[in-house]
Amino acid sequence: MAKGLLVSDPLTSAGFVSLVSAGPGDPELLTLKAANRLSRAEVVLYDDLASGPVLDHAHPHAELIPVGKRAGRPSARQDHVNALLVEHALAGRRVVRLKSGDSGIFGRLEEELAALIRAGIPFEIVPGVTSASAAAAAAGIPLTRRLTARRVQFITGADVTGHLPEDLDWAAIADPAVTTVVFMGQRSFPELARGLRAHGLPGDTPALFAQAVGHPQQHLIRSTVEDLARIMETAPVTHPGLILYGPLAFDL
Amino acid sequence: MAKGLLVSDPLTSAGFVSLVSAGPGDPELLTLKAANRLSRAEVVLYDDLASGPVLDHAHPHAELIPVGKRAGRPSARQDHVNALLVEHALAGRRVVRLKSGDSGIFGRLEEELAALIRAGIPFEIVPGVTSASAAAAAAGIPLTRRLTARRVQFITGADVTGHLPEDLDWAAIADPAVTTVVFMGQRSFPELARGLRAHGLPGDTPALFAQAVGHPQQHLIRSTVEDLARIMETAPVTHPGLILYGPLAFDL
Ligand SMILES: C[S@@+](CC[C@H](N)C(=O)[O-])C[C@H]1O[C@@H](n2cnc3c(N)ncnc32)[C@H](O)[C@@H]1O
Ligand SMILES: C[S@@+](CC[C@H](N)C(=O)[O-])C[C@H]1O[C@@H](n2cnc3c(N)ncnc32)[C@H](O)[C@@H]1O
Repeated sequence: MAKGLLVSDPLTSAGFVSLVSAGPGDPELLTLKAANRLSRAEVVLYDDLASGPVLDHAHPHAELIPVGKRAGRPSARQDHVNALLVEHALAGRRVVRLKSGDSGIFGRLEEELAALIRAGIPFEIVPGVTSASAAAAAAGIPLTRRLTARRVQFITGADVTGHLPEDLDWAAIADPAVTTVVFMGQRSFPELARGLRAHGLPGDTPALFAQAVGHPQQHLIRSTVEDLARIMETAPVTHPGLILYGPLAFDL
Repeated sequence: MAKGLLVSDPLTSAGFVSLVSAGPGDPELLTLKAANRLSRAEVVLYDDLASGPVLDHAHPHAELIPVGKRAGRPSARQDHVNALLVEHALAGRRVVRLKSGDSGIFGRLEEELAALIRAGIPFEIVPGVTSASAAAAAAGIPLTRRLTARRVQFITGADVTGHLPEDLDWAAIADPAVTTVVFMGQRSFPELARGLRAHGLPGDTPALFAQAVGHPQQHLIRSTVEDLARIMETAPVTHPGLILYGPLAFDL
């Protein structure tokens, strides 16, 4: 059992951190547990992507602290978030750390867990709806298909430097019989698509661009890997977005 | 836009199907939207794995129809579910089709969507918390790690025949730098583990067995691929379970 995990009652105990998954942004896609934790928190530390109407579930007297991108360089920011989490919990407060989608997916959860464990602070993780699931649902397609997509994989299109990761396993991600979901990949998609084509993925493989899923600005583009790469070449990045490619069920 | 997707208002319109994700089983891990759809449904068709306390959210007058494993052979069962869905919707009722975890992941969603589209029935998909996210959260670990697990993939350990699928991409699934989540894989794990070892995955790769996550019977085993395979060799399959392996953060 991970040290710190659920050693006290999250509903009543002070000095406790709930790492809460906020879902894709639609406040209706919060879980009941997430809404409950928000309503009882004294302090809520939230990301840019876990803000907006989701925060309406917080108690009116809760202190809401944004810890998003604007707070500084990525690493400084992460250290700062870790320090804030520990500080508020050690002050005996019920803290919610609100993270977008499912907190365990591309969300730097590991660093925050390590900080809490190091400081001996009890915590829980509340899982949530990842934007990958929400994107597929919004487009009316499943992530897996019984005969044609028996694996689904999530990758990131940007490493800490903001560029396409150098250690991509091209054979695994150019497999046309797998649904691949690319997080943080709008800017690098033209480059990713070139690599995928070079590793054998057909250019006419179905691809979906799912922007701001569950937000009022939601926008979906059903396309192919080749055409979507062309679109992304010039499209400005105005909102968070996912790219899905593989044997997507556009043909149902 | 997929035909049928969200063409009428799911809250008021009759003859509408909500394909609702129930989460892993803990009723608190339903989304607010799922709870809302359940409370307004006139008919709820539910799987074995999407039953129990989750159904308490249904309206007391709703007709609850189990369509689980006991209803017959897999293919007969799926045709039967499709037919029931269409029949109740054409009768003008508000139907909820309740599926475990996230409905788009290994849940035969495709077949049901195809049947609804063929019959011209409006529908929506309500995404949910997959048991993969819930298992990691229960174990206190993230599914991705910034430096060591930059890909996460979901596979199935059983095809329609109940055996290990024959078309597994061994190189992709034996990658020690990826978090792999195996659904429906308890029985075949010893065989899977032999294949993984043969394709270079170290036997001491961390592995997690997560049984009945979010249910009162929840049971977690933190182990290694090698040891877990030995345990699974003789363990009876009493509850649904997932196996996760890769650079799992047991060492935080
Ligand atoms: C730091 S990652 C966090 C992912 C999150 N933990 C999840 O499970 O969805 C942020 C990336 O997730 C994706 N994302 C998050 N919310 C989204 C949304 N509502 N619509 C589309 N993509 C989203 C985008 O690719 C974004 O760059
Ligand atoms: C037909 S699949 C459906 C998966 C579901 N759509 C999801 O996203 O979790 C059923 C398999 O999911 C896994 N599963 C579902 N619920 C689970 C739970 N509460 N605990 C552990 N595994 C679960 C098991 O591997 C089970 O055999």
